[in-house]
Amino acid sequence: MDTAACAPDRAPVPSAEEIAPVFDTLVVVGPGLIGSSVLRRAKEYGTLARRVIAVDISPEVCARVAELGIADEVTTDAAQAAVVADCVMLCVPVGAMGPVAASVLPAMRPGAILTEVGSTKVSVIEAITPYLRPDVPYVPAHPMAGTEFSGPDAGFATLFEDRWCLLTPLESTPADAVKAVRTLWERCGARLREMAPAHHDRVCAMVSHLPHLLAFTICGTADDLADETRSEVLDFAASGFRDFTRIAASDPIMWRDIFLLNRDALLEMLARFMEDAQAMARAIRWGDEDYIVDRIERGRKIRKSLIENRQA
Amino acid sequence: MDTAACAPDRAPVPSAEEIAPVFDTLVVVGPGLIGSSVLRRAKEYGTLARRVIAVDISPEVCARVAELGIADEVTTDAAQAAVVADCVMLCVPVGAMGPVAASVLPAMRPGAILTEVGSTKVSVIEAITPYLRPDVPYVPAHPMAGTEFSGPDAGFATLFEDRWCLLTPLESTPADAVKAVRTLWERCGARLREMAPAHHDRVCAMVSHLPHLLAFTICGTADDLADETRSEVLDFAASGFRDFTRIAASDPIMWRDIFLLNRDALLEMLARFMEDAQAMARAIRWGDEDYIVDRIERGRKIRKSLIENRQA
Repeated sequence: MDTAACAPDRAPVPSAEEIAPVFDTLVVVGPGLIGSSVLRRAKEYGTLARRVIAVDISPEVCARVAELGIADEVTTDAAQAAVVADCVMLCVPVGAMGPVAASVLPAMRPGAILTEVGSTKVSVIEAITPYLRPDVPYVPAHPMAGTEFSGPDAGFATLFEDRWCLLTPLESTPADAVKAVRTLWERCGARLREMAPAHHDRVCAMVSHLPHLLAFTICGTADDLADETRSEVLDFAASGFRDFTRIAASDPIMWRDIFLLNRDALLEMLARFMEDAQAMARAIRWGDEDYIVDRIERGRKIRKSLIENRQA
Repeated sequence: MDTAACAPDRAPVPSAEEIAPVFDTLVVVGPGLIGSSVLRRAKEYGTLARRVIAVDISPEVCARVAELGIADEVTTDAAQAAVVADCVMLCVPVGAMGPVAASVLPAMRPGAILTEVGSTKVSVIEAITPYLRPDVPYVPAHPMAGTEFSGPDAGFATLFEDRWCLLTPLESTPADAVKAVRTLWERCGARLREMAPAHHDRVCAMVSHLPHLLAFTICGTADDLADETRSEVLDFAASGFRDFTRIAASDPIMWRDIFLLNRDALLEMLARFMEDAQAMARAIRWGDEDYIVDRIERGRKIRKSLIENRQA
């Protein structure tokens, strides 16, 4: 221990140069909002990987990523990129995870890590499992960050700061692979938590998938109203309706896949919600004031908890 | 027409001193979020009324209003205040509008105007109608402004700026009374629109009451989950759930009254929404991708319209 009077009683914080990148070569497949944010973070901070390669099946997306200068190399050939990867991160829609994993896994080097960022975990793990190799550790992850925008232009290097990233490692996932992926996300500024895949899916069904489903639905309900009323719904949206529409602007294909691939947990949470909404409708019809006030009080309590929790 | 070269081709904008107040004495009954914002606007801008009197049944609220210095006089006696009013504005919960109107109307001077700010119009008009006098014009209004906070401390003078205020005059309401109330709200910075009371209630059921009902309900649904999942819902709320909770923090008594007093329109909108949510659930269960994408696309379209409409 350094006993010099003015020295702080702990190790000095290493400078950026002293932090070795987590990986030598990181391959990001699918440079959309999430993938391009990882690329930007890697390029701007230098602590994720020495080299980043972006892969997309679309030549247009590849050209745009090259134009943006957020990757060292860009290619449409996932297998070719996988050959040189120390880590392959799949950032494609959850419905594409299985096929893309099937194409990259045979090309990967022994010891290289496969990870992905799917918003549903049980179904993505099921889709990838048939193609897994014993010598390629697989670390399922879910960075809970996003905006209503999508594509390589939508990303930014600070997207993950103070956001959660959930890891749902399998029993067979080696601890050092989990640690490497954890470190990568920590260096993106994220807060990490580990949980079982099925538990993840229930939590996300409630906090994210059900709210999105309700938001899409109420927009559709409003859109079906007679013309005059619909146009006034748009005029007067600030009264509450608007709060529901931000998340309703999200990418349709991504959400279609999430809904279909987290079907069981989502339908369970929706069924609970519908029972509760019916109970509220009944209380309104029959004037059950105590029931109505009780449900509203719960809403306030939850909001208060969120504020105390610094989540709102 | 002034033909001097440099003179602008229109009347000069009058200075604040030149704008005569709309009313000599304005009485605001219920200095909560809305009422205290009107009081603040009146005191700070001087263009609504020469004198403002605040009325509340609670001596504590009256003491607080006096402390805040946002009214020239404060009293618990609505009838006594009504005697000297040129305009009485009821800013009480919609369920209290009838009884409060019954107490102030007999005291009002002939020609003085009664107005109110209830969020539901058909039921408030029904509640007030039995007490109306032919010599006291009644102008139902609904300033669509609010925050999740309530009480005299929550108000602010700019609350109504660029917000809508809907007027739902009766066939019997004299045009000059409508004009006076319209001018008052315009001087609060609001945008004005007139519509029939029943149409107002349907529009507000969709843009405001249904979103609040859904927000309260989803909070309750989350609160009913098993302890571990519930605590994680709070941790990970940023993923969409949070957007639903802001409006769920609103005042329970106010919302209970709104739900009960706009029962028919709200239950109709909720029924439409439930049908749509059930259809979405069915599409998810059976993997109807086209249906799901169509509903999501509508959400995006509505959001886009809101942005073009500068409502989001």
